[in-house]
Amino acid sequence: MKNRKHIPEFFKFLQDEICEGLEKLDGTSQFTEDQWKRDGGGGGRTRVIEEGAVFEKGGVNFSEVFGDAPSQIIHTLELDGGEIENAQFYAAGLSIVIHPKSPMVPIIHMNIRYFELTDSDGQQISEWFGGGIDLTPHYVVDKDARFFHENLKSACDRFDANYYDKFKLWADEYFFNTHRQESRGIGGIFFDRMVNDNSHTMEQHFEFVQAVGKSFLPIYGELVLRNKDLPFGKREEEWQAFRRGRYVEFNLIYDRGTKFGLQTGGRTESILMSLPKTASWKYKFKPDKGSKEDLALKKLVKGIAWVE
Amino acid sequence: MKNRKHIPEFFKFLQDEICEGLEKLDGTSQFTEDQWKRDGGGGGRTRVIEEGAVFEKGGVNFSEVFGDAPSQIIHTLELDGGEIENAQFYAAGLSIVIHPKSPMVPIIHMNIRYFELTDSDGQQISEWFGGGIDLTPHYVVDKDARFFHENLKSACDRFDANYYDKFKLWADEYFFNTHRQESRGIGGIFFDRMVNDNSHTMEQHFEFVQAVGKSFLPIYGELVLRNKDLPFGKREEEWQAFRRGRYVEFNLIYDRGTKFGLQTGGRTESILMSLPKTASWKYKFKPDKGSKEDLALKKLVKGIAWVE
Repeated sequence: MKNRKHIPEFFKFLQDEICEGLEKLDGTSQFTEDQWKRDGGGGGRTRVIEEGAVFEKGGVNFSEVFGDAPSQIIHTLELDGGEIENAQFYAAGLSIVIHPKSPMVPIIHMNIRYFELTDSDGQQISEWFGGGIDLTPHYVVDKDARFFHENLKSACDRFDANYYDKFKLWADEYFFNTHRQESRGIGGIFFDRMVNDNSHTMEQHFEFVQAVGKSFLPIYGELVLRNKDLPFGKREEEWQAFRRGRYVEFNLIYDRGTKFGLQTGGRTESILMSLPKTASWKYKFKPDKGSKEDLALKKLVKGIAWVE
Repeated sequence: MKNRKHIPEFFKFLQDEICEGLEKLDGTSQFTEDQWKRDGGGGGRTRVIEEGAVFEKGGVNFSEVFGDAPSQIIHTLELDGGEIENAQFYAAGLSIVIHPKSPMVPIIHMNIRYFELTDSDGQQISEWFGGGIDLTPHYVVDKDARFFHENLKSACDRFDANYYDKFKLWADEYFFNTHRQESRGIGGIFFDRMVNDNSHTMEQHFEFVQAVGKSFLPIYGELVLRNKDLPFGKREEEWQAFRRGRYVEFNLIYDRGTKFGLQTGGRTESILMSLPKTASWKYKFKPDKGSKEDLALKKLVKGIAWVE
């Protein structure tokens, strides 16, 4: 893409905007920032919030890494560059995971990213955008789930009438704990390898990625306000800890960003900011039939049409 | 190996013995048993203890699985059988992870296993034994660490004067959270692919595996008795939860048994019994310099010679 520098600039701008917005929502705690450098090229700006009134643990992380593309990256990304000598990569992204304190407020995740592979002469081999947002409520409130998906659909529809259906399906497949046969949450959208093709230019993909990024704060802000003052007790906290265990399983077993980050020598503390403050496991735990926890599980499945 | 059936028989016998021994040590709680079958061949006998006086969550699991060897297994094990049509596999093992309630008592893990690959005519392609024991104290007590390693060395020395050094080194490398540059615990022994070779027959390897398995109860029993009644408070519990987080990271990111199990359609609840009841994470957490937690971290590294 021409003017590639606009991409990290936008990601950093959005990081600022989202951190400010979340701090206002929290009202008590603030993000702390760590700037870090990567051996081999690039670095990042990690922002973490902990022990807030609303947000117990969360990160809004910008990173921009580049350098020699090791065969492991090429293998992980299933690229054709395996035979290219001295392939170089460039990757920029903004990654967010927020674990609220209250079990009544959903966990949210967003990622937007750009990736480029070049040969040793700087000749581009490939480039693409990717991203996604997904929501993990501990209890599923239908009207909140509809609100979430309707807003994502609106963002998608402005660019392509097929995007929402396609990317919602992709999220259902991606945010799935195969070994549990259980969805991580109520899905959202997921997209990857958006290349320059017959229907869209890279500039149009960038516009779409910006729209997705900009949708984060109004969507999550509304969901936080709707739920943050609801009462809860030990039962709800235990359920939250248990569901967080499944979140940990997904992130450490399947999440591509986590794998890519750990393999490319990313900063571990920034990558694993996605893990919750606490999580718990119990052998063969099953909620009582008909309980609100049981009802939640019935909605943590693939294929629910949240938008008419 | 001739009389292959002796292997699962021994594993089941040892499972019985260890469960009885641990129940006696606990004094309150008992193991519950689940027998399960695997689609495609085999199954297991999972035994889990929860909420005991001494043991908060633990499993002693026997499994014996077999059938078509999917390319994924061949790939995971880096086998040469990739080109062999209709390769069949057989795997039997006993896996133990015990998370004690008290932060003063170490977590222990043991695994012993046998693997065989045959072609469609039942002709053997390869077979081997593997296994390991490692200890994860939350605080490292030198005399306990020495006791642990000395006993493993005794078990090894009866079979080969080189085993302990070799397998201790292997454990140091294997039980390591690369992304944290931190050992999971104080190591132990790890060995794999013990095939029929110039120095040892499969029968001798089996004898060694039995000796390792039989060493579990006297070693862990002693460590439990030494530490179970030591006082502790909130500080020690928080440290325990934090160290358990690292245990979760190791098991979900690196542990080969976990990967192999989840990929071969093993029983998820049996495989993930290894996860603790609770775990916690904190961004960039570092204990105060010179604190007992800091001292523990200094001993959770590779290459400590615990035996003179």
